[in-house]
Amino acid sequence: MTDDTNRPVSFWAWGWEDRLPTDEDRRELRTQIEGLLGFPERPLLDLPGLEDVELPAPRIEGPDHATTSQSRRARAQHTYGKAYRDLVRGFHGDYANAPDVVARPENESEVADLLAWATEANVAVVPFGGGTSVVGGVECEGDGYAGVCSLDVREMDRVLEVDEHSRAARIQAGARGPEIREQLAEHGLQLRHYPQSYEFSTLGGWIATRAGGHFATRYTHIDDFVESVRAVTPSGTLETRRLPASGAGPDPNRFLLGSEGAFGVITEAWVRVQPRPPYRSRATVRFDDYWDGVAATREIVQARLYPANCRLLDANEAMLNELAFDGSSLLVLGFESTDHPVEDEMARALELADEHGGTCPDGPTHRDLNAEAASGEGDRDSSTEGKWRNAFFEGPYRYNALVSMGVLVDTFETAVTWDQFPALHEAVQERVGAAMDEVCGTGFLSCRFTHVYEDGPAPYYTLLAPAEVGRELEQWREVKRAASDTLEEFGATITHHHAVGRVHREHYHREVPDGYLDAVRSMKRTLDPAGVMNPGALL
Amino acid sequence: MTDDTNRPVSFWAWGWEDRLPTDEDRRELRTQIEGLLGFPERPLLDLPGLEDVELPAPRIEGPDHATTSQSRRARAQHTYGKAYRDLVRGFHGDYANAPDVVARPENESEVADLLAWATEANVAVVPFGGGTSVVGGVECEGDGYAGVCSLDVREMDRVLEVDEHSRAARIQAGARGPEIREQLAEHGLQLRHYPQSYEFSTLGGWIATRAGGHFATRYTHIDDFVESVRAVTPSGTLETRRLPASGAGPDPNRFLLGSEGAFGVITEAWVRVQPRPPYRSRATVRFDDYWDGVAATREIVQARLYPANCRLLDANEAMLNELAFDGSSLLVLGFESTDHPVEDEMARALELADEHGGTCPDGPTHRDLNAEAASGEGDRDSSTEGKWRNAFFEGPYRYNALVSMGVLVDTFETAVTWDQFPALHEAVQERVGAAMDEVCGTGFLSCRFTHVYEDGPAPYYTLLAPAEVGRELEQWREVKRAASDTLEEFGATITHHHAVGRVHREHYHREVPDGYLDAVRSMKRTLDPAGVMNPGALL
Repeated sequence: MTDDTNRPVSFWAWGWEDRLPTDEDRRELRTQIEGLLGFPERPLLDLPGLEDVELPAPRIEGPDHATTSQSRRARAQHTYGKAYRDLVRGFHGDYANAPDVVARPENESEVADLLAWATEANVAVVPFGGGTSVVGGVECEGDGYAGVCSLDVREMDRVLEVDEHSRAARIQAGARGPEIREQLAEHGLQLRHYPQSYEFSTLGGWIATRAGGHFATRYTHIDDFVESVRAVTPSGTLETRRLPASGAGPDPNRFLLGSEGAFGVITEAWVRVQPRPPYRSRATVRFDDYWDGVAATREIVQARLYPANCRLLDANEAMLNELAFDGSSLLVLGFESTDHPVEDEMARALELADEHGGTCPDGPTHRDLNAEAASGEGDRDSSTEGKWRNAFFEGPYRYNALVSMGVLVDTFETAVTWDQFPALHEAVQERVGAAMDEVCGTGFLSCRFTHVYEDGPAPYYTLLAPAEVGRELEQWREVKRAASDTLEEFGATITHHHAVGRVHREHYHREVPDGYLDAVRSMKRTLDPAGVMNPGALL
Repeated sequence: MTDDTNRPVSFWAWGWEDRLPTDEDRRELRTQIEGLLGFPERPLLDLPGLEDVELPAPRIEGPDHATTSQSRRARAQHTYGKAYRDLVRGFHGDYANAPDVVARPENESEVADLLAWATEANVAVVPFGGGTSVVGGVECEGDGYAGVCSLDVREMDRVLEVDEHSRAARIQAGARGPEIREQLAEHGLQLRHYPQSYEFSTLGGWIATRAGGHFATRYTHIDDFVESVRAVTPSGTLETRRLPASGAGPDPNRFLLGSEGAFGVITEAWVRVQPRPPYRSRATVRFDDYWDGVAATREIVQARLYPANCRLLDANEAMLNELAFDGSSLLVLGFESTDHPVEDEMARALELADEHGGTCPDGPTHRDLNAEAASGEGDRDSSTEGKWRNAFFEGPYRYNALVSMGVLVDTFETAVTWDQFPALHEAVQERVGAAMDEVCGTGFLSCRFTHVYEDGPAPYYTLLAPAEVGRELEQWREVKRAASDTLEEFGATITHHHAVGRVHREHYHREVPDGYLDAVRSMKRTLDPAGVMNPGALL
């Protein structure tokens, strides 16, 4: 627990306060942006200070029995997630919706007490893990409520039990990525779920939002790792049985996976873990034509080779990640195994890529980490895949600088069947591009596949445009609407792994059948009769 | 549609009427049973005739607008599923709970009309596919209702659309296994979902019950093939969006998967399909000690080799299937691929088996069906795996004979984590064995793994005991209770893929959290306000 004590996280920006961009960082980035994307000259705005933030007076106090805070820092830090619109609002000092109180329960019984208090006092409760939502999952206006309590689960951050035989671990919901890694390492095990928010996001948040992780195939979402879940709802505590599988009725874990705090607070889960995979093969394949890359990717996944990494980067994405500047698309391929070399799988994938004109000039690299450790070799993670991974986790930090220099930056992601993807992709390029041109004068859009399925890819779009300082949210809304409407029209999902939150709620309600939505609402009424759980998220 | 016209299915027994056991079949089987299992002399009872069945007078008629039948055959055929207790009741002419009317809607709008009529007239509706439930999923007493309507979806049996690019097909719920196979074959595709009931069971039934299929790993349940589902509920029609994946809220497909007709009638689904896999490797590994086999199986699945078949048969199961008579356990391994040879996966699996003392005297067999077809070779499916498969689909026919000679025969299946399996298995042997001894004087129990997961196996138990004719159900209940109670006590699931129905309902209600059950009930009230959908199943 160091995020607001020993090493404070920023109240407005992504990540640690000591990693906020320096003026030198920002000047360098500005040069790149202007040079690479041809944006008009960008300003360097002053970074905000906590002392300048104006917070509304709290409407309520927390209950006596709970560990709560109403400090300026705690309330500011719990006001938003980490989407572009969150950073913009925080940057400009808009904290009108700060929670009235932040609770940090240390155990499940304190969670239950808090929910009982909230139900009684008509206080909206917003479960809060890493606070890394990019869909408005952790903000709440509190209209119609006596106040808003942000319920931060970060005090519950322990690995409680490890079953090495079945390769599973019982972990508290507030444990974030690195904490899980460190505690499991004592048992020689890993979860290998690495969302981009890994440094800060928590197991509970991953489950509540059906987070996407490391693996491009097979184990794409946290869903695939969950054996059982415990959650505290206003109507009582739920715990599903720890099972490798079951066919008994609709899967109870699936009701909590994606529930986004609307039913209750996830407190712990049994998840499947594994040893570190020593066998790894990596390659980067170059395609002159993006659609050849798409065809190759489809064949590789339909061949059931189960690549751990299978990220097709379009030319803009390759450029943005400084991996290629010649207009080619790149397929970043990775295989891994705890048990056996994966050279054959890689060879077959490269063969399929080759049939579509994909070239791999540097060839694949194969590693055996155990053998390297035994021979005293150091880590030599200099491959494209390694560069890619580092850039991946650095990405969110770059948002801080971009927001501070008037650059609109956002991502949206989806999944769609292979037959629909070409029409969708073309429409996204055209309409989101047009929206950026109209609203911002120009814009840049890139696409990568984060995950791939036998029946379709999960494309992930990144957009950048010069924003007018003070009008950013208005501009963002226009561009976002173009994106979301296009996904809906072309039969894609509003989100593959970013969740619904408040930002995607309307589109989500049109995506799922009405009868289903009514059924989910009736579930919520049963588990949360007073409707205090994260009102406005999902439902 | 031939099951009660051109080639009638038996009104009481498994399968086609023309495949009912002859006296010669039964004498042969009796000799085997008495010799192999040491049961006391078994009687050969007369098989029942439809003309002897007494049906209660129907309490209601179907609506004018629908295709319905109240014929003796239709009502008798729709009274039960195909569990031991169903065959026994049918054999002895107990048709007190025959549905009053059998409806065979030809399209979705007729289904909707039927549900509207049932809601209005307070008629219980029991969705009926192949009628192969082994958990009382398709029977209904109708207490508190004006009558019972069996809603048979078998007229809706077409593959409606195929997306070869995304490898998916839209199929009507009433299509049974062979019908799906034939229609997809025109496109060079297969579903490769082969439950033991494959010859008769339907896609809709598979989805409603979360049926288990062909693959021991990775694609274990029909759940893994479902892209989207359409269902008609009393409150309207639901259709989930066709998507390879989504992270938008709790997965709507998962609410219908396992819903067992309690919310409505599944009418069609998009499912993932694949070409026939030409590359296949098979092997049978012998273990002197069962627990060595268990350890090897665990390592093979944890190595993520993804065997299509990974069935560990204990000594009794190997004997029952006439594969080994020397007390050894067998691991029947199969790998398959549409894309590449699978010899390496097999070699690695055999290596892991070898480390635990597993021997494979005949070595693995590797095939390339395309190459064989090109060279004009015929099918040479004589391996243990092939024998096993044939016996697998013949299995249910044998029940007919056993019931007619006073043999109690049943199966129960579960899933449990690896760490819990030894204690569970020991308790099952002991307690179910003791129950059979006490109730039937003796008994035989065997076990195989049907599916395996990284965190645990899905053991499937078969039991045989000499029954006292006329007391079979009483005896069965005692033995079944011992089995179900043991599963519950040792943290296993009441069903891995047989579903809940009416037989497992009480244990299911104790397996899932109360709050979850309340939530499911509230969903049902929303979708089926009059409570006419399959009352007593699941809920």
